[in-house]
Amino acid sequence: MELLEEHRCFEGWQQRWRHDSAVLKCPMTFSIFLPTPRTTPPPVLYWLSGLTCNDENFTTKAGAQRVASELGIVLVMPDTSPRGENVPNNESYDLGQGASFYLNATEQPWADHFRMYDYINDELPALIADNFSISEKASIFGHSMGGHGALSIALKNPGRYCSVSAFAPIVNPTRVPWGQKAFNAYLGADEGKWREWDSCCLLMQADTTHAIPVLIDQGDADQFLADQLQPAQFAEVARQKSWPLTLRVQPGYDHSYYFIASFIEDHLRFHAEHLA
Amino acid sequence: MELLEEHRCFEGWQQRWRHDSAVLKCPMTFSIFLPTPRTTPPPVLYWLSGLTCNDENFTTKAGAQRVASELGIVLVMPDTSPRGENVPNNESYDLGQGASFYLNATEQPWADHFRMYDYINDELPALIADNFSISEKASIFGHSMGGHGALSIALKNPGRYCSVSAFAPIVNPTRVPWGQKAFNAYLGADEGKWREWDSCCLLMQADTTHAIPVLIDQGDADQFLADQLQPAQFAEVARQKSWPLTLRVQPGYDHSYYFIASFIEDHLRFHAEHLA
Repeated sequence: MELLEEHRCFEGWQQRWRHDSAVLKCPMTFSIFLPTPRTTPPPVLYWLSGLTCNDENFTTKAGAQRVASELGIVLVMPDTSPRGENVPNNESYDLGQGASFYLNATEQPWADHFRMYDYINDELPALIADNFSISEKASIFGHSMGGHGALSIALKNPGRYCSVSAFAPIVNPTRVPWGQKAFNAYLGADEGKWREWDSCCLLMQADTTHAIPVLIDQGDADQFLADQLQPAQFAEVARQKSWPLTLRVQPGYDHSYYFIASFIEDHLRFHAEHLA
Repeated sequence: MELLEEHRCFEGWQQRWRHDSAVLKCPMTFSIFLPTPRTTPPPVLYWLSGLTCNDENFTTKAGAQRVASELGIVLVMPDTSPRGENVPNNESYDLGQGASFYLNATEQPWADHFRMYDYINDELPALIADNFSISEKASIFGHSMGGHGALSIALKNPGRYCSVSAFAPIVNPTRVPWGQKAFNAYLGADEGKWREWDSCCLLMQADTTHAIPVLIDQGDADQFLADQLQPAQFAEVARQKSWPLTLRVQPGYDHSYYFIASFIEDHLRFHAEHLA
């Protein structure tokens, strides 16, 4: 691992690292916030960003370090896809680099590199555990495409994450344009395979004996609410399953990082409660 | 004025506006944070950014809106210079567009447009007062070149600002490379004229009956500390004049927005106390 940047931040350290990913077959960059060391190793909270982002959007704009420092939580911000000249891409913003949808692609030209699910769920946590002093407790959260990633990864791994939360997540990608375009490209035309990566479908099949608490914030002035997000679909499944979901609709807020920054403290305190 | 962007943020509004500046002879963009309206009009706190920045660096990275919302303060973030194809520029990052040093240039090719002192001190406050509901109280703060701007503008206008603060300011531009390069270009070779824009010189001549409180934060891992910043020079003048200065040296912090974000709350509470 190569340290690219390091900054003192809220009495902790904000770092940026590059490493070679065996899973993604390319160099990857991630950011990490390390609070001041305490007597016990801190838990880890993984953040998954949305379309077009890299590891720096959340790191610079969300204001999460202040609360993570207070609560003693390590924040890990991975990139949103494999990157580089040797990695397939697409000219549209919602497919290819910056738009992995956090799944394991089965179709070409994507299948060799686009295995972000394995990277986020296995390779990156192992790397973090090998290189930093952390506890075994982890939670996960994200925004938009990253909210889809956080929810679907948590639901596919019962017992692995203590809690999951999302800002304006794509909860039902099999039914909305962003998800349909990506799933068709990455997973092929068989829609039956898509359901393994759709949080509404995963929640419907989930074993409630392993239920973990879910927090979702959604701005009602979000330009993508009606066509791409529809958190009410997820809330309806949660209601049917008696799954512990808190869905908050925030009046006047849009899809931007101003929305995320406004409620990031609530999400960190929610996770801290379940990581304790 | 044309509204370019508007986002709900911490129960207030983050807006971005464009207007034609008569003083700078070009269109200018500024950002403003408006907290939720209260029974009395809020005071205004002006932020001046550093070299290469525009109105968005502080707006997106400092995390100031959270505290401004709580305290009921309007934040105004202007650009760092006149802009556009018709405005003179220089290929180096520390001269021309993005590098005004918040003074009134007297030399060509700069003198026709580079009057940021008049813009920040007169034209912009009048525009804000005409278009938003605000009180008559104002304070000013900034970073690096913008810290120089905030200190020099406050010192040149006794009674106008309630308080002034700065992160890693250029306090003695007549003696450091950034300031010498800029002042030579904007003000000419006569170093006697430079002293009107140097905070150490201004403080030396200041009437202490109009003293306003000053807060300065400086990271001791700041790469520019020794060559460009030297806040101890300003502290020594303040000591001689018995001027109310608090200079805090923050161990391990650098020149970045991670440093600013870490201490922005202290600065906002400092100003709120003196704007009350």
